[in-house]
This record gives sequence, C-alpha cells and structure tokens, in this order.
Amino acid sequence: MNDIAGLINHAQNAYARCIDSGNLEAWPDFFEEDCVYKITTADNRAQGLEAGLIFANSRGMLIDRVASLREANIYERHVYRHFLGQPWIVSQNANDVRSETSFFVARIMRDGTTDVYATGQYIDTYTLTGTEPKLRERIVVCDSSRFDTLLALPL
Amino acid sequence: MNDIAGLINHAQNAYARCIDSGNLEAWPDFFEEDCVYKITTADNRAQGLEAGLIFANSRGMLIDRVASLREANIYERHVYRHFLGQPWIVSQNANDVRSETSFFVARIMRDGTTDVYATGQYIDTYTLTGTEPKLRERIVVCDSSRFDTLLALPL
Amino acid sequence: MNDIAGLINHAQNAYARCIDSGNLEAWPDFFEEDCVYKITTADNRAQGLEAGLIFANSRGMLIDRVASLREANIYERHVYRHFLGQPWIVSQNANDVRSETSFFVARIMRDGTTDVYATGQYIDTYTLTGTEPKLRERIVVCDSSRFDTLLALPL
Repeated sequence: MNDIAGLINHAQNAYARCIDSGNLEAWPDFFEEDCVYKITTADNRAQGLEAGLIFANSRGMLIDRVASLREANIYERHVYRHFLGQPWIVSQNANDVRSETSFFVARIMRDGTTDVYATGQYIDTYTLTGTEPKLRERIVVCDSSRFDTLLALPL
Repeated sequence: MNDIAGLINHAQNAYARCIDSGNLEAWPDFFEEDCVYKITTADNRAQGLEAGLIFANSRGMLIDRVASLREANIYERHVYRHFLGQPWIVSQNANDVRSETSFFVARIMRDGTTDVYATGQYIDTYTLTGTEPKLRERIVVCDSSRFDTLLALPL
Repeated sequence: MNDIAGLINHAQNAYARCIDSGNLEAWPDFFEEDCVYKITTADNRAQGLEAGLIFANSRGMLIDRVASLREANIYERHVYRHFLGQPWIVSQNANDVRSETSFFVARIMRDGTTDVYATGQYIDTYTLTGTEPKLRERIVVCDSSRFDTLLALPL
C-alpha cells in the first residue's frame, strides 16, 4: 500500500469508529467547512438523478443533522458497525485525492437483532492541505434502492 | 504489510471492483491465458472431490462464460458486493505467489433485498512475470455447501 | 500503515485463520501464558459489569476450553468466517501495543445456512517482547446483547 492509500485508509477507519462508537457530534469534523455529503442509490446515480436521499453542502448542515437526530429521539435505538474495503485511489495530486471504497454496514437493534443494513461505495474527495485528510465530498452510493425508514445515523 | 502483500491486496481489490461494478467482460483479464478457475465447497475439498461446481481451465472458457451469462438473460438481475480479508501469503518466489484470502459476498436483489450470499476463501496462485499480477489459478472454496441456484456472476 | 499496524494486522489475520480453519488447538498459542480473554457485550461494558459471558485468565484455561469443546460434541457442527477491520493503534511502546479492531463473524451451519453471527470490537493488548506479537489481553465486546446459545467456538 502506498502512502496515500495508507493515509486514506486511516482516515476512513477513524470515520467508521466515530459513528460506530456513537460519537455523532464528532462526525462533522471529518468534513471541510465547505463540503458535499450525499446519500444516493446506484440506480438513481445510473439514471443521473442528482437529488439523493440525504443532501448537505456545508459542515453546518451536518451539525444540524446530528442535533436533530439527538432531539428527535423517536427512533428505535440502534448501532452500526462499519466494514470498509481498501480505498481505491482514483486520482491524486498535492492538494486532494479521489478514492472509492466499498462499505458494508451491519445494524444492531436494541433487541439484539443484527442485519446487513447497507452495502455500497463511498465516492470521496479528500483534501490534503490540513494536518489530516478532510472530506470535501462524500457521495454514499447504496447498492440497494430499498431503505429502511429508520435511516438515521450517518453512513 | 510487505510489498508482495500490498501488490496482491491491490490486485484483489481490482478484481472485486470489476465484478461489483458489473463489468464482467473485463473479468477474464485478471487471469493468465492458461489458467484454472474453480468454485468448490469446503466439504468437497475436504473429501478430495476435485470436480467443483464450476470449472474452467483457460481464459477462453471464462470469456465464454461471461458471454453466456449476458445472453441467457433469464436470471433475476442482481449485484454483488465483495469484501476481502488481507491476503495471507503462503509462499512466494520471483515468478509467482500463492495466497489465501477470506471473502464475503453480499448479494443485492432487484427488489432491494440484501443477504449474505457466500463466504469462503480464495486459494490463489498469482504470476508476477507481467506488468501486474495475473491469476494462474483461483480455487474459490465456499464455506457453505448449499448454493442458491442463481449462482451466476463470478465469485 | 506504519510498521506496528502492519504487524498487528498480520497477527489478527493469523488468529482469524486459525479459528476459521477449525484448528482450535492452536488458538491458545496466540495468547501469553498469563493473559485475559473475555467475551462481553457493549451494554455490560457501558454499565461497568466486569463479569463477561466467558472469562479466562491463563492460557491453561483456554486450552481447557478447547478440550471441553472437543469433548462435549453436542453442539451442532458449524464454522465461522471472521472479517476484521484495520486495527486502530491506541497506544504503543517498546513492549506492548493496545489496539481496537472491528470484527464481523459469519456463521455457516451444517445445513448451509449463513448468518451474521456477531459484530463488535476486539480491545487488545499485544506483547511485543517475543518473536511475534502475543495477546496479553483480549476483550471481545459484542455489539449485540442477544447471543445464540450455540456460543461455542472462540471469537
């Protein structure tokens, strides 16, 4: 693994740990102030539908999303466990890296039930100009078009 | 990770991306012209049964297989998502590498259902004499002996 | 990945291969003579409950556990397949490394059924003073509190 792949691998690992440990308030810190975060499906993407199931274009919107998740405590409690493939480096230069990474997320419900919640790809642009890589764009492309309405925690 | 493990890791990642993106026509390129590709089960292997569920001993046979998959469009459409463990280097010399790698394949059906399709091990021999590692042999040993008859896309 | 992460990664891979290949007698060798092995749940851990579902504090106890598993052959036969995230190095010095690693274990029953058996985190302390890293402590923290009574093979 070259240095860039190792660096991105480490950043992805940190991202997954943040969500899986329930520390949602730290999640927006993985993004640049000026960023895009979108959850979409492979079908929508293939059809050129840009909307996405979830869309944010600033870190502030991500912070708001976490706040509303905490407030609207109506969701059945559950946790995620992320598993990530090796990042595939699509391109890189001195300032940023584009990478694609398979993900698999298991969901563990309060009653102990565990299922395959989502699989897909992160299509990322990381900025390298700071002390550690930050996401300028993360497009979460889910393989399945069917989503549990419990979609709540970030992917 | 040493250099060989990194090299094999990268090749495995490329292989998984190829199938998961639906680009089956590029799949035979991961193999040598003269190659073995076999899907079998742990039970059959333990009993010394050599037949395999699927068997090919040339790249041409793999190309034929893809062509027939495309033609015989009777299968319910579905996609795979591969997750691979770190390759375990069994042996290596200047010309080739033997490695074993755990795999887990999630299958996403057209209706959005996602399940654990197969788990097992790739038992591989990679040739190193070209510009990138090529498979001279891939034995796909599935943990389960029960297979969905939909077995269609390559593992 | 730095050298320590690569070293731990390799040790984790060896551990998973040992169990997944059914070679349980070799499993205690991954631990120091004087060690802690515990399986607990995230809920129990959050509440400070120290007991654990399974507890051993010496390699001898692990050897005994394997012997009794072999003897008490009353369990339905099944195999595991482990998938591990990248180890997260929490701290390190010349003598030992603390790391945390996500795991996902698929279970394949005799009849071929495959399910997500367990997900969670290994919270490990590895000793580095020997020829290869050995576990001085492994706390297996399962995400789910509901366990199949078939809990038998080591995690």
